[in-house]
Amino acid sequence: MTAVVGLLSLASFSASAAEPVDPIEPVEVKNPALVELGKMLFFEPRLSRSGFISCNSCHNLATGGVDNLKTSIGDYWAQGPINSPTVLNSYGQIAQFWNGRAKTLAEQAAGPIANPLEMGSTHEHAVKVISSIPGYAEYFKKAFGDEKVDIARITEAIGEFERTLVTPNARFDKWLKGDKNAITAEELKGYELFKSSGCMICHNGAQLGGQSFQKMGSIRPYQTTNTDEGVKAISGRDQDRMTFKVPLLRNVELTYPYFHDGEAETLEEAVEVMGDIQLGKRYTKEETARIVAFLKTLTGDQPKIVYPVLPPNGPDTPKFEPWAPKPEGK
Amino acid sequence: MTAVVGLLSLASFSASAAEPVDPIEPVEVKNPALVELGKMLFFEPRLSRSGFISCNSCHNLATGGVDNLKTSIGDYWAQGPINSPTVLNSYGQIAQFWNGRAKTLAEQAAGPIANPLEMGSTHEHAVKVISSIPGYAEYFKKAFGDEKVDIARITEAIGEFERTLVTPNARFDKWLKGDKNAITAEELKGYELFKSSGCMICHNGAQLGGQSFQKMGSIRPYQTTNTDEGVKAISGRDQDRMTFKVPLLRNVELTYPYFHDGEAETLEEAVEVMGDIQLGKRYTKEETARIVAFLKTLTGDQPKIVYPVLPPNGPDTPKFEPWAPKPEGK
Repeated sequence: MTAVVGLLSLASFSASAAEPVDPIEPVEVKNPALVELGKMLFFEPRLSRSGFISCNSCHNLATGGVDNLKTSIGDYWAQGPINSPTVLNSYGQIAQFWNGRAKTLAEQAAGPIANPLEMGSTHEHAVKVISSIPGYAEYFKKAFGDEKVDIARITEAIGEFERTLVTPNARFDKWLKGDKNAITAEELKGYELFKSSGCMICHNGAQLGGQSFQKMGSIRPYQTTNTDEGVKAISGRDQDRMTFKVPLLRNVELTYPYFHDGEAETLEEAVEVMGDIQLGKRYTKEETARIVAFLKTLTGDQPKIVYPVLPPNGPDTPKFEPWAPKPEGK
Repeated sequence: MTAVVGLLSLASFSASAAEPVDPIEPVEVKNPALVELGKMLFFEPRLSRSGFISCNSCHNLATGGVDNLKTSIGDYWAQGPINSPTVLNSYGQIAQFWNGRAKTLAEQAAGPIANPLEMGSTHEHAVKVISSIPGYAEYFKKAFGDEKVDIARITEAIGEFERTLVTPNARFDKWLKGDKNAITAEELKGYELFKSSGCMICHNGAQLGGQSFQKMGSIRPYQTTNTDEGVKAISGRDQDRMTFKVPLLRNVELTYPYFHDGEAETLEEAVEVMGDIQLGKRYTKEETARIVAFLKTLTGDQPKIVYPVLPPNGPDTPKFEPWAPKPEGK
């Protein structure tokens, strides 16, 4: 799908349904061994400094691919700066992270491993750890043809696993595909209002989001104590302050709390605030309820994950010392 | 199996194989709905104060039912006082916890939920949280006949799930059942030495442990900086200081580090120390290697767990505030 920053992509209109959204479809897996390795590494706590935090800690596949916390808990119980976006259906977005600083899932996966507020390790250390675990060799060989471990392979595998984390068969997708009874009249009204009042200018494409960057507060400024500056932190341009990637709305019923600061606890609150600051609209209670009813039709089949069994440490695996004195700046 | 504290149980001798150990067998499930609910609750981070820590955090089913840390990380990154024992094959032990303070798995499961150094919640709060999640009602109804949520039901479900976490088909079990090629000559020598030198006086029964309490350091005192006093903390009797439940040895290759203090990092070290302080034996390097080779035949098929999908919060679910000011004493 072609994505155009800041504009509604024409390509995101589904030809068949004539709706600016496509159903989520199951993913074709070309290299199952790579996906299997990626799953192991996604659940691998030894990618963190402590040996306790994995990708799944904050992108929990039991709970919509998020941790349902305002911001995430990291190394030494660090308070993360921003709300964890869902990993579900995250492939196909224009970029990853709220400020879009990673182009691919693999590039994204590299971030938290080395972020002192998240997994708190380094890429060098993570590679040393995974290389030292004898049981991983066969999985790297199956996935890549040889046993070499490096950060590019680790993150490529995680990204490839994440690409499979799609949630097809949402009631809304069944409706898109022609089953007119898949959603109720009230939910359909919610969808129509979602379109007609402008939400879909940004929340479009198969993911209903993730296709553009937008100013949070395009009509009225958004008030928050969160200090994240959005895209400005990447571009350095003042005009990008509070510009964020539009979050995707698939499974949004499960991915509370909402916004980059996690300050909206309910879908009702999120819809009201968005209408107000992005569209200049004050929805009635009835209108909000309709849009929320529609949003709840976006919950699809959650990925069926067989929990991985991870190989034990080898003789050269570095020790994990969760309570080692915190270095300056942590 | 009858278990006799401090004595080798006669009942633990397998009649068929004439060995003081029985194979691990798959578990018969009478109430699959109860097991399913228990699995959800085992992976449920909302049983903790923070909404971040679940039973699986420290008894990780990806890594032998333990966290492979010396002691466990708890609420606010607390440093736990003792090494997390494996949850695998934990049913059928004489009691639960290192000091045996819980008789059943359900009673054990109640402990960490309310321990300030572990999940840091209270039973009252945990019940309030689970009751407030609308999606749990159907699971409680299927498991128990009605939707009532209380701590007894929560822990009964977790215990029933844990009862299913057995690891059959270890190579040693295949050997016990008559497949004489299932273990090597070296491994068999290790088993024979394990028996003849006295390890099996304590490490017997299907789990190779968990059937009695023993003094850590029965021949020579064990040196440790860990302050846990073992059974004395329960009985109040001085003679029970440093007496612990004998840990089970199933999957011991995966459940490092060893001992209640987690101070033995390798199986070699654990075998040497045990020989020394429990049996007054200084094994040669070759003997230690043989016993270790035998111990590695005890790794069975790890439980195949389909990762659960947990129902979202309801309108009355209490907020999770991981960084709320720590109360006095935490």
